[in-house]
Order: sequence, then C-alpha cells, then structure tokens
Amino acid sequence: MLKEVSLKEATRIINHGPVVLVSSKLGERKGITPVAWTMPVDKDPPIIALEIGEGHFIYECIMETGDFVVSVPSRDMAEVVIGCGTCSGRDRDKFSVFGLSERPSKKITSPGVSGALAFLECELIKDSYLLEKYNLVLGSVKYAEAEEEAFSGHWLFEKEELVTLHHLGNKVFCCPEGKLIDLREKEVE
Amino acid sequence: MLKEVSLKEATRIINHGPVVLVSSKLGERKGITPVAWTMPVDKDPPIIALEIGEGHFIYECIMETGDFVVSVPSRDMAEVVIGCGTCSGRDRDKFSVFGLSERPSKKITSPGVSGALAFLECELIKDSYLLEKYNLVLGSVKYAEAEEEAFSGHWLFEKEELVTLHHLGNKVFCCPEGKLIDLREKEVE
Repeated sequence: MLKEVSLKEATRIINHGPVVLVSSKLGERKGITPVAWTMPVDKDPPIIALEIGEGHFIYECIMETGDFVVSVPSRDMAEVVIGCGTCSGRDRDKFSVFGLSERPSKKITSPGVSGALAFLECELIKDSYLLEKYNLVLGSVKYAEAEEEAFSGHWLFEKEELVTLHHLGNKVFCCPEGKLIDLREKEVE
Repeated sequence: MLKEVSLKEATRIINHGPVVLVSSKLGERKGITPVAWTMPVDKDPPIIALEIGEGHFIYECIMETGDFVVSVPSRDMAEVVIGCGTCSGRDRDKFSVFGLSERPSKKITSPGVSGALAFLECELIKDSYLLEKYNLVLGSVKYAEAEEEAFSGHWLFEKEELVTLHHLGNKVFCCPEGKLIDLREKEVE
C-alpha cells in the first residue's frame, strides 16, 4: 500500500543512491528513462537533481511538460530498467512496449510507473544555466509517496522483494540486503 | 591492494550512490566530511557533483585549496562516517580525533582517508553560479583508484568486508549484499 511521505522526508527516498525511472508526458508524447545519476540538492523544501543527456527524448518531454515523476523501481524491475534504457521513446510508447501502467500523479501532470516502490512528483526548476551548461535537471518535489512496508522515515529493507536497485555500470546492479547498520543509539567519539 | 582505475571508468566508483568522505587540506587546515548527496555529472572526462552546505568548514577548505578527495568508506567505517558528520573540523583535526591516516594523493594536494575502498582525486571546478545558488561543488576527477579485490570495471561486492555504505537518513545505513543482478547476457525486450 502506498502512503504519503512528508515533504521533509522526501529526499530520503533517493538518499542512498538508487537507480530511478524518470517519466514525463504531455498529451500523447511520453517518455520513461532510467537515471542512475541523481541526488538531493536541498531538503526543505525538497529539491533533487538529475543528470540527463540533452539528446534524450525524455529531456524534450520534461522541457515541454515542465514536470516529471521519479519512480523508484524494485529489484524485480531490473529488466524494465535496462529495457527503458536501451531504446528511445521518440518513436514508441515505452509504457506499452514494457507492459507498464501509468500511475496518475496527485500534484502534477506527468504520470509515474506503476509497481515502483516510491514516487517523487517534481516540477521542473527552469534554470537555463544548469540545463545548458551541464544538462542538469532540477526538480522541486511537490508530493512523495512510498510503499508503507518498505519505507517509514527511511527505507526499511525488511523484505527481500522490497529493496531498491543500484546501478554499478553496464547492465549490472546491486541491492541492499541484510541488516541495516543503525547507529542511532551509539555514542560516537 | 589499491589499483588505478582508468578515468573513463572513474565515475563508476560512485555510480550506485555510496556515502563518501570528502577531505581537503591546505597547510594545517584540513577537513573531512561525509557526503551522501553526490553523483557523477559527466563521464569522459569525469566530473562529479557534491552538495555541501556553505557554512561547513570543508567548504572553506575546498575553496581555499582548490581540490579535494572523495574516499569511499567500507562498511567497517560506519562509525567514522557518523563521527566525522557530527563535529566540525574548524577547531579540531578529525584525522587525529578519529585515528585516521592521510593517504597522499597522486595528482592533487589534498589527501584522502586511508583505509577507504576507493578514491577520486578531484580538482574544484570554480563555477560561482553553482556554488552561490545551490552550494553545488563540482570536481574534475584527475586520478582514481580502488581496491582491486573490490572493483574491476565496476564494484564486485564478493567479500562481505569490501562493500560500500549507503546512507538512509539519521544514523542508519544499508550495504549492497548478495548476488549482483547481471543482465549483460540477457536479451531485453
């Protein structure tokens, strides 16, 4: 069951570096692309950064639509991630090609990718300097939600299927497993 | 044993989102700080981004020195990571406080943190727009190396002690474990 994540905790969804699926749609033009190069840049209000090459169709979609969703795939979605990364959405609908459903957003126009573990609905911050010089896309997070069994204040990783995917390069991924390292009760120094 | 990583593969060292220790030193002024918010922004030549708050001592060190090292800690260094994040280097030498040794760099002035699994030696890209508007520090990677048992083209994670740390929030971390998901031989679509 998906549950709203407060905006103050929204950046925690990508704090540990998972690969994400970025989707954007304006009318019939829609794209999905995997992005490993992403990080928060501010916490409150939450802002995130994505590095997306300028030639990519998703880049055009985001510029036209002005918003996008960051969907965090589970380990079971590794093939979808690779698939979405190895073809262009310019001449095909990747939702349809890969049998994905659109998850309607609460606060923005673009849909997310159903079945993902968590979602960040983002409005594009139109910073032409960043876009032109570094292809760096910033998003202001307007709404966040996550599977309640998977995320509570931070990722829990208690169930094998509810873990994030992390891209090592090529078509190779790792996943967080085993016990978390929890130093909250530990006096350090 | 540390082994040089080619600059073309250098961004793979942080591709999967590990927390890193950033160190910088000019004369007797030196700092170390943990940074979870980091990502590559270009591959060839390799450039990485770090989000560091402006008030932090390490920010001053980097601005003065013009270079910094990104050291990727192993799971055994979780307490050091928390420790370095909960005090300031302005009035103390964190290398000494936490019993860390400096790893001399090959191409830059600032040292890394001995015992880490991998290192990126970076020259600051002085982009005042990014620094002033977003506190976003860019580094041009000049040299990279990694433990050869831990990294070969990408992270291997074959040994329990040779895994990276990923920050979930507060003082909680996860680590990649188990088998990698390797889809290189798989025809997707």
